[in-house]
Amino acid sequence: MLHLRAAERGVLFVVSGPSGAGKSTLIEHLRAQIPDLAFSVSATTRPPRPGDVEGKTYHFLTDDQFQSMIASGALYEYASVYGRWYGTPRAGVDAMLAAGRSVVLDIDTQGSQQVRAITQDAVHVFILPPDVATLAMRLERRGTDAPEVVARRLADAGEQIRGATTYDYLIVNDDLQCAKNEIEAIFVAETARLSRRANALQRVISDLDHLPRP
Amino acid sequence: MLHLRAAERGVLFVVSGPSGAGKSTLIEHLRAQIPDLAFSVSATTRPPRPGDVEGKTYHFLTDDQFQSMIASGALYEYASVYGRWYGTPRAGVDAMLAAGRSVVLDIDTQGSQQVRAITQDAVHVFILPPDVATLAMRLERRGTDAPEVVARRLADAGEQIRGATTYDYLIVNDDLQCAKNEIEAIFVAETARLSRRANALQRVISDLDHLPRP
Repeated sequence: MLHLRAAERGVLFVVSGPSGAGKSTLIEHLRAQIPDLAFSVSATTRPPRPGDVEGKTYHFLTDDQFQSMIASGALYEYASVYGRWYGTPRAGVDAMLAAGRSVVLDIDTQGSQQVRAITQDAVHVFILPPDVATLAMRLERRGTDAPEVVARRLADAGEQIRGATTYDYLIVNDDLQCAKNEIEAIFVAETARLSRRANALQRVISDLDHLPRP
Repeated sequence: MLHLRAAERGVLFVVSGPSGAGKSTLIEHLRAQIPDLAFSVSATTRPPRPGDVEGKTYHFLTDDQFQSMIASGALYEYASVYGRWYGTPRAGVDAMLAAGRSVVLDIDTQGSQQVRAITQDAVHVFILPPDVATLAMRLERRGTDAPEVVARRLADAGEQIRGATTYDYLIVNDDLQCAKNEIEAIFVAETARLSRRANALQRVISDLDHLPRP
């Protein structure tokens, strides 16, 4: 288990990847390795289902509430899926970052672009399947699906992959252990960026300035 | 032990830190963890000593040879120390990078600035002692040194630390295990930058373009 060092400010991580790339497995790995890591709770207009807990699985909002959050810029990103809205409220995320906790957003490439339009300080990680044949095989895994359903999934995955060119990091998931090491390393390394530890350096420089002269 | 994934191109890492920050320990750790990592062999005009091996401990050059390397831009960085020249030949480093091996340069902040003037693609890591009191204590460790020698060492360390503001990463070495994790993570993460894996992404995108239409 890895403990991220106490940070001056948390890091906002965006993790994306098509269905079939192994993103969920890698995010589960991060949760297990870095217990301090926070995950954002999305807002949605879909009705609660059995097992849903307000504020835990989702923040459940009315359409009016959601639209007013969009209008006031209160979301990092949002999208409509089958007529329901989903989005990431900024307030909760920003509070965690300010408290020094890093936050993961599990969102798609369009969401990543929306986040990038709001902040330059987020770190964008894309999970790529090793090749198209492997991707197609993984998307066909439920052998009973109609060919057009599989084709649709593959088209969606392709759209995500074509949108990956703006990301900061690319994890090629052809070897799960290697991919786990890499996503972990990215999270640890980004907390060690000088831009995020400027206070620690300034403190030592200031102490040097106040040394007694020999 | 960590194996860096085969890279399209190696990464040039600059590691700096004042005497007393623990840089040598951290570089030793990297050597042990990442056997693929290459270390540059410096050129110098100091005469060989017993145990020195040409091309292994140093490339031993005459003053004329060294000056002509400076003149032709054949060094990533160079400096004169007590009348002897030391520098990093570009040819050897560039060949390793082109072969996909990452390379570490253990150089000071002036060297880092020289490297940055030549390439924007290097990654600069600075090792900071936890605080000035700890630094002073470590520099006084050989209790027999004259106060002015210790003061000189502290002044040199201070100059290095003041020069650290341009680095990409800052490792605060107050907990050795944490510092080891961080330097390792930085090396693994930087190899996963999308800019260094653009070919892998383009290959998958190109395969998507050539999928049979359903």
